[in-house]
Amino acid sequence: MRLRNKPWAKDFMAEHPDVLILDPEGKKGRWTEEFGNDAPIHIEVGTGKGQFIIGMALANPEINYIGIEHFDNVIVSALEKAIEAKKPSNLRLMRVNGEELESLFVGSEISRVYLNFSDPWPKDRHEKRRLTHPNFLAKYEGVLKANGEIHFKTDNRSLFEYSLVSMTDYGMKLRSVSLDLHASMPEDNVLTEYEEKFSSKGHPIYRLEAQYQS
Amino acid sequence: MRLRNKPWAKDFMAEHPDVLILDPEGKKGRWTEEFGNDAPIHIEVGTGKGQFIIGMALANPEINYIGIEHFDNVIVSALEKAIEAKKPSNLRLMRVNGEELESLFVGSEISRVYLNFSDPWPKDRHEKRRLTHPNFLAKYEGVLKANGEIHFKTDNRSLFEYSLVSMTDYGMKLRSVSLDLHASMPEDNVLTEYEEKFSSKGHPIYRLEAQYQS
Repeated sequence: MRLRNKPWAKDFMAEHPDVLILDPEGKKGRWTEEFGNDAPIHIEVGTGKGQFIIGMALANPEINYIGIEHFDNVIVSALEKAIEAKKPSNLRLMRVNGEELESLFVGSEISRVYLNFSDPWPKDRHEKRRLTHPNFLAKYEGVLKANGEIHFKTDNRSLFEYSLVSMTDYGMKLRSVSLDLHASMPEDNVLTEYEEKFSSKGHPIYRLEAQYQS
Repeated sequence: MRLRNKPWAKDFMAEHPDVLILDPEGKKGRWTEEFGNDAPIHIEVGTGKGQFIIGMALANPEINYIGIEHFDNVIVSALEKAIEAKKPSNLRLMRVNGEELESLFVGSEISRVYLNFSDPWPKDRHEKRRLTHPNFLAKYEGVLKANGEIHFKTDNRSLFEYSLVSMTDYGMKLRSVSLDLHASMPEDNVLTEYEEKFSSKGHPIYRLEAQYQS
């Protein structure tokens, strides 16, 4: 993703602490309190410009959603969309690195992790940066409930092939796999920005649901 | 596959017992003797017209290959090809049903099972006929060595999606997955008749290697 410098981003982010959490580590173990209910919490790691997580929050008011994104200049777009959507009460955003999950959540605080169109890091020497590397799978497991799930979409064939092997090698079970999601589009599929762009070019979208085995 | 009636098939098959085994059950537990060596044995279930298994036998003289096919009118084509290829000494064919594996091999007699372009049986009520149904996975496990492998290729997306879930749910680990085999064709890929036909139409070929966990 091309990153334009947005010098106003920091100030803008500070003005909406009801959506964009300013002290992420301060919420650890206190998310039920933050949302004001004990509904299941689903997070998206690498939430980008937010179309997916905001669409999910609007479509599923009985679930709490947290979008995590590392880059200021990207998450401000998600924040803008969240404001346009009138700040759904079941949505929060955080500008943090996916590597830091353990400092954001206690064990079992999360019910599901979404990964959408994650950076493929195609070079072998960057394997550890892929969000489906076993190191990351261990991080997700550390904050998920027993039998928690990862739902993963991508148009990148190599990353999907890698992830199928990586997840099952980790001991996860595949609950469902689609190798051309848009060929029979599920009614409840919420599209990401990338997904709109790539599928309109005729690329297949790959999707899986994988579950940790306790 | 369209089956033409071949009234001469039975007689022709009986004339080449050195390639087409006439008493399959009689070989059970005696395959080392049949081949005259103790090289690993790989079988293909649903060998069709034989292009794959014969190509493999010619390319890998250090492995013994057995092609299993249910239909007379199909396996005679494989037999014709085997004769043209001068009957490789590491190749055998059998006209039997894949359901009968336990009556053909003792436990641990086989090192690898190949499934290529198996009938997808798309209707839910025919799920049990798919060669990657758990019932079949159990049959293969019953004749394979510990940590034996299944190598599976197909152009049928739904069957491949089903098989990824079925195999990992059974407890198998994926060793490798390709969602477009011909995009970076492995040097040692031996094509089946179907594979030539379908990939020339631009359909992706899916492939996986899965391993039983002991």
